[in-house]
Amino acid sequence: MSHKPEGHDRYELHPQLAADTHPVVAFALSDLRLMDDSNYPWLVLVPRVVDAREMIDLDAGQRRQLTDEIDHASRLLRDAFSPFKLNVAALGNLVPQLHVHVIARFEHDPAWPAPVWGRVAARPYTPEALVERIVQLNEFLRS
Amino acid sequence: MSHKPEGHDRYELHPQLAADTHPVVAFALSDLRLMDDSNYPWLVLVPRVVDAREMIDLDAGQRRQLTDEIDHASRLLRDAFSPFKLNVAALGNLVPQLHVHVIARFEHDPAWPAPVWGRVAARPYTPEALVERIVQLNEFLRS
Repeated sequence: MSHKPEGHDRYELHPQLAADTHPVVAFALSDLRLMDDSNYPWLVLVPRVVDAREMIDLDAGQRRQLTDEIDHASRLLRDAFSPFKLNVAALGNLVPQLHVHVIARFEHDPAWPAPVWGRVAARPYTPEALVERIVQLNEFLRS
Repeated sequence: MSHKPEGHDRYELHPQLAADTHPVVAFALSDLRLMDDSNYPWLVLVPRVVDAREMIDLDAGQRRQLTDEIDHASRLLRDAFSPFKLNVAALGNLVPQLHVHVIARFEHDPAWPAPVWGRVAARPYTPEALVERIVQLNEFLRS
């Protein structure tokens, strides 16, 4: 007999992540999503693992896969945007579902050199800019 | 003929990291160090890889090893402090040498729920508390 409430035993994207990000592509373990903040090229990886909150909640194979996908997302940002620095972080203080930020940083971006969280208000993409950005990312992923 | 200035072809800890952190133990790839800020149990992993600035500067074997060492440091903090949340981050906007923060976070810590960087002034350990903390961490590492 399961003690879990109905529906909680399958993976679902947290509503806050669904609201703040847009889908780019599905990797083997994680969904790669774009943060709706045009201040920075900002990707988020969300492993499709039920109840994962910390990286240590993953098994060794999942952890290795996530590492490869962080590497993939990092190279994507490097190739597409030539950032001055990459920021990679799993924080999750506000949204409990495991997710990893991969952010392209520039010396002229509005939060530099501070971390991006809580510095300046998000600047959502226009619909046109959002489509353009997601098409661009998918083109780099295919190349 | 090498174009690198003398001495730059071997690994050296960045002076800022040397000033801000204390050695705990040497893992296979990284030095595990304690941030001198008693506001949070805060570890830093510094891979001993010359000129590494980003995680994508590591080769696949080093990346895998670093992932295992992040896992090791995370479990150490979980076992020793039972934090509410772990924060794992490679930022490096200020100190260019590759280093990974692994921080135990609590709902009652002075920066919660914000990330720790730039929130409240560091509270250095007293010499006694520093020794106690490093001994404690080494005991958990051996157990």
